[in-house]
Amino acid sequence: MTQQEGWPKIAVVGAGAVGGYFGGMLARAGAPVVMIGRPVFVEAVKKSGLFLDTLQLQESVRVEASTELSAVRGAEIVLFCVKTTDNATTRALAPLLLPGALVLSMQNGVDNVEQIRAGARVAVLPAVVCVGASVPEPGRVKHVGRGDLVIGPENEKTKRIAALFSRAQVPCRISENIEGELWTKLVWNCALNAVSALGRAKYGQIASSSDAWKVVETAVYEVLAVAGAAGIHPPGLEDPKVALAGALKIATQMAEALSSTGQDLNRGKRTEIDSLNGYISRRGAELGVRTPVNHALFALVKLAEGRS
Amino acid sequence: MTQQEGWPKIAVVGAGAVGGYFGGMLARAGAPVVMIGRPVFVEAVKKSGLFLDTLQLQESVRVEASTELSAVRGAEIVLFCVKTTDNATTRALAPLLLPGALVLSMQNGVDNVEQIRAGARVAVLPAVVCVGASVPEPGRVKHVGRGDLVIGPENEKTKRIAALFSRAQVPCRISENIEGELWTKLVWNCALNAVSALGRAKYGQIASSSDAWKVVETAVYEVLAVAGAAGIHPPGLEDPKVALAGALKIATQMAEALSSTGQDLNRGKRTEIDSLNGYISRRGAELGVRTPVNHALFALVKLAEGRS
Repeated sequence: MTQQEGWPKIAVVGAGAVGGYFGGMLARAGAPVVMIGRPVFVEAVKKSGLFLDTLQLQESVRVEASTELSAVRGAEIVLFCVKTTDNATTRALAPLLLPGALVLSMQNGVDNVEQIRAGARVAVLPAVVCVGASVPEPGRVKHVGRGDLVIGPENEKTKRIAALFSRAQVPCRISENIEGELWTKLVWNCALNAVSALGRAKYGQIASSSDAWKVVETAVYEVLAVAGAAGIHPPGLEDPKVALAGALKIATQMAEALSSTGQDLNRGKRTEIDSLNGYISRRGAELGVRTPVNHALFALVKLAEGRS
Repeated sequence: MTQQEGWPKIAVVGAGAVGGYFGGMLARAGAPVVMIGRPVFVEAVKKSGLFLDTLQLQESVRVEASTELSAVRGAEIVLFCVKTTDNATTRALAPLLLPGALVLSMQNGVDNVEQIRAGARVAVLPAVVCVGASVPEPGRVKHVGRGDLVIGPENEKTKRIAALFSRAQVPCRISENIEGELWTKLVWNCALNAVSALGRAKYGQIASSSDAWKVVETAVYEVLAVAGAAGIHPPGLEDPKVALAGALKIATQMAEALSSTGQDLNRGKRTEIDSLNGYISRRGAELGVRTPVNHALFALVKLAEGRS
């Protein structure tokens, strides 16, 4: 019996911090994993494997790596970890997949499944990803906190996925309110990402400025109002004060973090703001809920994109 | 009869683009002008005079220049052109002035006179400054548009000031609604300055983004709501649509401009945002008028200050 017995073939599309961590944990447990990423990543992994530097272990893991999307051929499960701005990738992905293959969207935002389904005929499930991780150098993943998933609702597919991750020591909870769970993460992202980017500030600096925190508050209230109008119930956030306490906890725990949106702006890259405050602005307009602050955060980040 | 006959001694405190242009025009007409500025400015002016590069003329003008505030001694009129963040300068200025000397605040914002009076016993009048000017190098002022003043209401003091400027070919109108006139300029500043700074965008880029322009619109509506609650009537802006058309005209005419707030952020300097969107946020809170977008623009610029 080989270590790989019983594992499906798994492909990671977009081998950054998220794809690297979760794909790496599966590979470490024995799953046959192929990671599709940039040339520098592929070169590093082919040479020395993928180095997982986690809170629990430091270990080089053997994975296949390719720059070609066609390397997904034969995969039963695809961890889809590209930025939301690259959702159209699934159009090229769809024809390469086995019948019955499952794409797991491990992205920010709440409308990736909708976007992916609109563009390609693939079976796709959303996952809420909670992990603090970065790529300090190609082929290396540094994990600094959490590392768990929420999927749902419970059915044969989600139970199988949860079992696979559990076997790889990755906590994977099944929720009957997966949409609400996605929105909970959206609340945090809408609260902090753009403020950090536009204010060129770390989370701790936002938390310690009462004026900046008032912006976070207004943004959170707007997101919860849109959620309410859309009939979504982000678990645990029924009371806006609890939501704000949660945002403050994140900002304090991650005091030294600059948001991914801020990092993208500084590198002159496109951000995911369309899927974050931009989504709230659009959805609020559809539902007749005013979202002036989310709209401003979205529009200002868009304006600043490519002008680092 | 010398050219200087009939002119009062005039001091410019803060010899940047505004002080340089208006002080330079007075000096050119024959007024004895002393300009207080930074060492590089004083050195350049002492060596070669102040060079006025205007739409009408290119000419080197003889002015006195000093780095010392005490050089204001003997001045009857002080053109006060420092940033609003330096309003406390008047505390040191007051004891140096002649009895009856007049300080003309040529600054952005609507509460400089109040701030200056709170800190020092000086006679101070506000002026609304409309000029496109910059300092391409120390001792040189480049003038690209307008160059006129509004003061008021009509009385002996304002008539004298208006006559002095008119003698120097500077249009100076007297208004019976000077507070409203100051607010008109505040509307433009609150509309464009912070959006340009946070979006790292020139005015033309703001005007050509419908999402960004919606932020400008909301900011303008909020400022006009605060003005209404405060009993202020910015002339010509009774109809918000007219106000927005005015903002669009400015943004289009000055398409290549990055706001002074943006320039300050890029140089790691303090901005005047406390006197612009920050003033609207504070005044709105006092008057019970919601100003979420002005508050966000203010708080984000404050957060970004010193983090260029």
